[in-house]
Amino acid sequence: MTEKFVYSFKEGNKEMKELLGGKGANLAEMTSLGIPVPPGFTITTKACQLYYEDNKRLNEDVKNQIYEKLLELERDIGKKLGDEQEPLLVSVRSGAAVSMPGMMDTVLNLGLNDKTVIGLGSKTGNDRFAFDSYRRFIQMFGNVVMGVKSELFEEILSKVKSSKGIKFDKDLGVDDLKKLIAMYKQLIEIKTGKLFPDNVHEQLYMAINAVFESWNNERAISYRRLNNIHGLIGTAVNIQTMVFGNMGDDSGTGVCFTRNPSNGDNNFYGEFLMNAQGEDVVAGIRTPEEIDKLGEIMPGIYNQLLEIRDKLEIHYKDMQDIEFTIQEDRLYVLQTRNGKRTAQAAVKIAVEMVEQGLINRETAVLRVEPESLNQLLHKQIDPNFKSNSEILSKGLPASPGAAVGKIVFNADDAQLMMERGESSILVRIETSPEDIEGMNAAQGILTSRGGMTSHAAVVARGMGKCCVAGCSELIIDENKRTFEVSGKVLREGDIITLDGSTGEVFSGSLKLIEPSMAGDFGKLMQWADELKKLGVRTNSDTPKDASVALKFGAQGIGLCRTEHMFFEESRIKAVREMILAEDVGKRKQALSKILPMQKNDFKDLFKIMDNRPIIIRLLDPPLHEFLPKDEKGIHSISSEVGVSPEKIKEKIEELHEFNPMLGHRGCRLAISYPEIAEMQVIAIFEAALEVIEEGITPLPEIEVPLAGNVKEFLKIKDIVKKVADEMNINGRIKYKVGTMIEVPRAAITADEFAKDADFMSFGTNDLTQMGCGFSRDDSGSFLKEYVYLGIYKRDPFQSIDQEGIGKLMQICVEKARAVNPKIEIGICGEHGGEQESVKFCHRIGLNDVSCSPYRVPIARLSAAQAAVEEKKQKEEQAYKELVKKSVSSLKSKFGESIRMDDLEKELYVMINTESFKR
Amino acid sequence: MTEKFVYSFKEGNKEMKELLGGKGANLAEMTSLGIPVPPGFTITTKACQLYYEDNKRLNEDVKNQIYEKLLELERDIGKKLGDEQEPLLVSVRSGAAVSMPGMMDTVLNLGLNDKTVIGLGSKTGNDRFAFDSYRRFIQMFGNVVMGVKSELFEEILSKVKSSKGIKFDKDLGVDDLKKLIAMYKQLIEIKTGKLFPDNVHEQLYMAINAVFESWNNERAISYRRLNNIHGLIGTAVNIQTMVFGNMGDDSGTGVCFTRNPSNGDNNFYGEFLMNAQGEDVVAGIRTPEEIDKLGEIMPGIYNQLLEIRDKLEIHYKDMQDIEFTIQEDRLYVLQTRNGKRTAQAAVKIAVEMVEQGLINRETAVLRVEPESLNQLLHKQIDPNFKSNSEILSKGLPASPGAAVGKIVFNADDAQLMMERGESSILVRIETSPEDIEGMNAAQGILTSRGGMTSHAAVVARGMGKCCVAGCSELIIDENKRTFEVSGKVLREGDIITLDGSTGEVFSGSLKLIEPSMAGDFGKLMQWADELKKLGVRTNSDTPKDASVALKFGAQGIGLCRTEHMFFEESRIKAVREMILAEDVGKRKQALSKILPMQKNDFKDLFKIMDNRPIIIRLLDPPLHEFLPKDEKGIHSISSEVGVSPEKIKEKIEELHEFNPMLGHRGCRLAISYPEIAEMQVIAIFEAALEVIEEGITPLPEIEVPLAGNVKEFLKIKDIVKKVADEMNINGRIKYKVGTMIEVPRAAITADEFAKDADFMSFGTNDLTQMGCGFSRDDSGSFLKEYVYLGIYKRDPFQSIDQEGIGKLMQICVEKARAVNPKIEIGICGEHGGEQESVKFCHRIGLNDVSCSPYRVPIARLSAAQAAVEEKKQKEEQAYKELVKKSVSSLKSKFGESIRMDDLEKELYVMINTESFKR
Repeated sequence: MTEKFVYSFKEGNKEMKELLGGKGANLAEMTSLGIPVPPGFTITTKACQLYYEDNKRLNEDVKNQIYEKLLELERDIGKKLGDEQEPLLVSVRSGAAVSMPGMMDTVLNLGLNDKTVIGLGSKTGNDRFAFDSYRRFIQMFGNVVMGVKSELFEEILSKVKSSKGIKFDKDLGVDDLKKLIAMYKQLIEIKTGKLFPDNVHEQLYMAINAVFESWNNERAISYRRLNNIHGLIGTAVNIQTMVFGNMGDDSGTGVCFTRNPSNGDNNFYGEFLMNAQGEDVVAGIRTPEEIDKLGEIMPGIYNQLLEIRDKLEIHYKDMQDIEFTIQEDRLYVLQTRNGKRTAQAAVKIAVEMVEQGLINRETAVLRVEPESLNQLLHKQIDPNFKSNSEILSKGLPASPGAAVGKIVFNADDAQLMMERGESSILVRIETSPEDIEGMNAAQGILTSRGGMTSHAAVVARGMGKCCVAGCSELIIDENKRTFEVSGKVLREGDIITLDGSTGEVFSGSLKLIEPSMAGDFGKLMQWADELKKLGVRTNSDTPKDASVALKFGAQGIGLCRTEHMFFEESRIKAVREMILAEDVGKRKQALSKILPMQKNDFKDLFKIMDNRPIIIRLLDPPLHEFLPKDEKGIHSISSEVGVSPEKIKEKIEELHEFNPMLGHRGCRLAISYPEIAEMQVIAIFEAALEVIEEGITPLPEIEVPLAGNVKEFLKIKDIVKKVADEMNINGRIKYKVGTMIEVPRAAITADEFAKDADFMSFGTNDLTQMGCGFSRDDSGSFLKEYVYLGIYKRDPFQSIDQEGIGKLMQICVEKARAVNPKIEIGICGEHGGEQESVKFCHRIGLNDVSCSPYRVPIARLSAAQAAVEEKKQKEEQAYKELVKKSVSSLKSKFGESIRMDDLEKELYVMINTESFKR
Repeated sequence: MTEKFVYSFKEGNKEMKELLGGKGANLAEMTSLGIPVPPGFTITTKACQLYYEDNKRLNEDVKNQIYEKLLELERDIGKKLGDEQEPLLVSVRSGAAVSMPGMMDTVLNLGLNDKTVIGLGSKTGNDRFAFDSYRRFIQMFGNVVMGVKSELFEEILSKVKSSKGIKFDKDLGVDDLKKLIAMYKQLIEIKTGKLFPDNVHEQLYMAINAVFESWNNERAISYRRLNNIHGLIGTAVNIQTMVFGNMGDDSGTGVCFTRNPSNGDNNFYGEFLMNAQGEDVVAGIRTPEEIDKLGEIMPGIYNQLLEIRDKLEIHYKDMQDIEFTIQEDRLYVLQTRNGKRTAQAAVKIAVEMVEQGLINRETAVLRVEPESLNQLLHKQIDPNFKSNSEILSKGLPASPGAAVGKIVFNADDAQLMMERGESSILVRIETSPEDIEGMNAAQGILTSRGGMTSHAAVVARGMGKCCVAGCSELIIDENKRTFEVSGKVLREGDIITLDGSTGEVFSGSLKLIEPSMAGDFGKLMQWADELKKLGVRTNSDTPKDASVALKFGAQGIGLCRTEHMFFEESRIKAVREMILAEDVGKRKQALSKILPMQKNDFKDLFKIMDNRPIIIRLLDPPLHEFLPKDEKGIHSISSEVGVSPEKIKEKIEELHEFNPMLGHRGCRLAISYPEIAEMQVIAIFEAALEVIEEGITPLPEIEVPLAGNVKEFLKIKDIVKKVADEMNINGRIKYKVGTMIEVPRAAITADEFAKDADFMSFGTNDLTQMGCGFSRDDSGSFLKEYVYLGIYKRDPFQSIDQEGIGKLMQICVEKARAVNPKIEIGICGEHGGEQESVKFCHRIGLNDVSCSPYRVPIARLSAAQAAVEEKKQKEEQAYKELVKKSVSSLKSKFGESIRMDDLEKELYVMINTESFKR
């Protein structure tokens, strides 16, 4: 008994996507629903796998099974492939388990040769149609199967047309077509050294091979890589009876959606062309009509289509994208699939389908791509205008949204513009902490250097401000106040438009549209919150960010970077005094100036986040970041702080590091200068005590950065304890002390930390830098290539490297929980707002994730999806075990004689249907 | 039944060091051997621990037991503490399990007061002796126990002497002494507000408390930290009957060694003073006589001492350091312990003791500190001259040995000096790869920046060249060709001497002595090789280094850094051409110039290492390291290579990285420029084929650096495979392909690597950098403090951080071996030659270690020690289990009534003796 490699449409169903591909499974499903599908059969993906295993040869079993199914098909419809009177014509189409539109090959009208074309002509009473179909077939077959460039066919076609003075293909007569056919065949022979195959069965097998081949063409491989499609074994091949929409005015073809894919409205939506084939719709020579119009022209067909629309949507419980053809007043459905849609439509359809009782909330939550929510949260360029505009360049989509403004080249100018009430775009080679005010004043930020996690990108995302980063084509001259891109020079004051969601930069001012936070969005997010298990916090350092995050549903702050408070213009002076202090006494003096400011920062945050936890990270960056880099800056500080320029330069030299990433920063600062940490802890506690007076409940969680050794953590914890004792805090404030996990050593020794830490939070940016040995600032030079080569599936700074850094995280969680099962573990790296990373965090059992305010909804939805997916997987597992049990109980009853494999499959399919699950 | 806290010398033995301290255990052991030890008893370390647990109060049980033992002692010798006729005097001395000489407190002559002093005088017939002892006791007690500064006592003493016109203490009369005693007591009362205690029992308990206190004085704590002494619970206290070497010409005191501790000769060695106490020997007022002389003065005593010498050495099976006192013609031994010795002596003694049958080879191998072998392998400053010379400054002992030469400030001058036949010391702020030739030409290297693993240090160790690094007091002015240190200015041409083993820098030329590679050394190393399980290879890039390493016993090369070959002056031009090449074609052209040179390098190494494996690491450093840093260098290259200075600057700018450590280097280069790796592999294979012709067996092991993801490794392995196929290598050359493990991610995913790698080698320098998040170049600013604070026990760049990075290594080994049990795993970081790290590598089951040539003997000895220690530990474990078994079998026979604890202890001690083990 050999394996079954070929399934008739009558045999399969929609659950068999892995084996039959998406298209094949749906054709089978529709067939069994009684939808008028042109009959046919599907060759499995397994056959494709075998094809490659057998050194690209079609397996004999497969061949035999194809032949059998072909005979069955011929019997069913009373036509025969190659029959001179009743010739059967078929299409041969690819179809993998995951849709890869346009990537693989298709052959139409297969079955025509010099003899069958005559039969087709007389049978349809339309010679022109027959010969035109033949001509098209040879062209397609010659190109797709035999590898002759399609331009060559087009050249011959246009020569014949021009020699006859003809403009459109449809004006070619039968004789012209016969001439063309002869010329096409000659072309093929010259180019390939082979004759075009008259044998229709040879045509069929050649076409099947070609489709299998196309599974591994360059285009398909790179499509799979770019779309992270992994683990598929090959493509299926669908052999289907041809139907023709171009057989006269009672014929036609169209595409329709069961709902509006653009805004989600529950209206029938689509377009069609009479007397045309699918390719004509695509070619765009004739303008298709809106689907309503079909009701006027062919009301019967239209009503049938409306019925099918309802039937398919109710059956698939999702919005369908349907292709149909009308041949001589008969309707055929050629394909149905879940329709692509905008984020807005996705949300609306999901919510309305729940309200209709079509799907439950869990399913609804899975229906919206978390990343796509970005579209709903930011201003966008009006799509109607965008396509006509001139793209200047493209960088990295570093922070979503869109912005229009005049070019400025420094932070001061951006502030001036704001004061004048004008919009600006801040253009810099890269930004530094000194630019923060200017970044805040500008509408958007454009840099020529730095990646998705560069300073500009991180800060912009934190601000919810549009940013295009690493736009390396730009040659910026900050002195001349110009930038050059592909030969064009733009100057200060010129207007540009940024699209931070795509990375595009446009010349001039494009129209922007405001985000619409419709009611459906709120409903969906509420369901997500009910389903998710992960807490979602935000990375926020300012009251403004914290308020935005709260509006977006953050349940607390997962990372408050205290150093961001140090960079503010009014404070950096005192910070510099502290750095330049010659002894502890002077350092403490400078710190005492900073204390009241920090206290006020914390008070503001406590008030906004009343009764919600706030992780406050102690000072993290190396001190040299607070000092100026150029002569001018040094002199201006010198007079400000009263320290000679030489001393300042000496200090800068002293603080210089070869690898600042691995240098004197994080808790290492607090160990060298305990008085800094002490000041911060005092500020936290004083702020907490003061807001308690106002009826607020502060929940500070003090976090130690960059600890690699538990003793570092304990030293800082001792400082907190000492301050708490001195201030007699205990019992008055609920506070926690925890550690970041960003040094690999900390992850490996997490059991030691867990004994004394109340919480842990993965700093996955740094953990990735150190764990993979990639400097975030430098890896641009090779990381793109690494992703291209498939060394990493995705940029590990964008999505957690689950196979590497993820393992380190798992080791950490296991070690920590073994010692302290109640320890709270979260993540606050950039990854905390990326959907795959959030799902991974759910799977390894973290308590919460934290991300920039504008990504909070994305994290919430991702967290809900992770919970639902886990539940479904468990159910699936349970079903599989149920099946196993049933099978073995059947075996014990009936003995080994029954065909277990098939039985198992059938049981599995049965059990796996929605109706069974309810 | 309370615990036993006090042991008479008759009760203990030498195995009880943990409980009785080293001194106490040895006093007990000697007592039981019948050696004349002044009787006494020991208060256990446990009592000290209890003292601290009880808030620094002497436990009542302990007090009672002390009192009982004191009564016993009094009965035994017929004297009583405080008795006015027969007063007992005792010494109270500290003694921990590990010797901490001079760190804790001692009180002598305890038991004297205004009454007993009279009894002592009449009993000894020597009033002056009695009052002088009393005077000394008050001074010592007042200082050690009551905290009065000793200078104050000395001040009074000298005043009394000068008022009497007396020069020496011994000239003070009884009345002077009485006056002094009265003044001392007054001093104590004024300074402490307390009276000097007349009650002798109060004296005793106060002294015991003081010794316990001294366990945690600052001096002792820092001694333990500096000497890595951990895990001790406290000090024991020894109460011993006083004997006096200053009771006349039939009395005396001395120190002797059973063999010569300086050169190891088997001669009785020591010195003594007649009519003196131990402190007089130390004070250095009188010059002691050599021990032979005692044979002339007191032949009986001398012969008794010779007998004791033999008895103790045979008993302890090690060279002993013995303190003795002669009181009125009677010999007393006050202490014996294993004597400290030079490396030369240690080797000779160990070897000769094996030949005498005193110890076995395993014990001999344990007797020599591996690190001390450094003394035997390099030139040294003659110790006779060193102490009188002027130390200019002290830096890090970066590479052992000594060197004398004229100061030069750049590499070219060092070469000029060599050409002129003069010796030079290269003095630089820090060295760079461009200095290598100059470093080679100089006798020694001195830098003002950089740590133990800086460029200068690593390269110098590799060359076996003396280096003092990071001598931060030096202010070097390379332009003026001077350096300034503590106010002195030295100029080019001035002569200095470096001691690379201590880090000292001397002004002028000191006498050096050549290393003596005596026959004993060879024997010991041979035994080490027979015992060790780890292979020991060397890190060598040049034929010279490889030859030295071979001489030192290397079994192959564990790391050949191919880039070191790139830096040579004759080659760097081609390397720069390659870097500046604009396309693959030009790059290949430049590479083809390097190919024959690389091939020759490998041929030389293959010949030297015939039939021994050589790990050849593919190009590792970032390319910018090959380009010049200054304007001058850029211009000189520009004309050399024919590329404009602007282009070169552009390239330098392009290659600049913020964190080069985590940048574009290692296998990342080979992925971006596969043609580089290809050239290197071709060079390796061509070299191998050519030397095979000459009858040589090359065993190349090609190593991929900095892989973090198995796919990186596989890409490079594919290149090797491709070249091997193209050159038709397979079967002709035995080669391996493996990976370095230096990125934490690689360690975590070692199972994936192990499937395809033939070997792995830990690059623990980088693994430590990335795993701990420390930049080797920058961590100087905080790492010293970290070690000082005990956050890391030792600098993790010097000795593997076993609790952190070590865990990562263990995870790696376990994962790799689970998949590929035969995979060979080694280490080639700087740690591969450090004794504790080598032992750790043995314990986690590595196959071999690799280190710089001059450290090969150290690694061999460490490896042998690790193997012996493991064996001993297993034996110990087996004995312990044996004891457990016996105890439980006894229990089952005799019931619970027998005192199991004591039984267990006794059985353990019995079983643990050498005689039982044989």
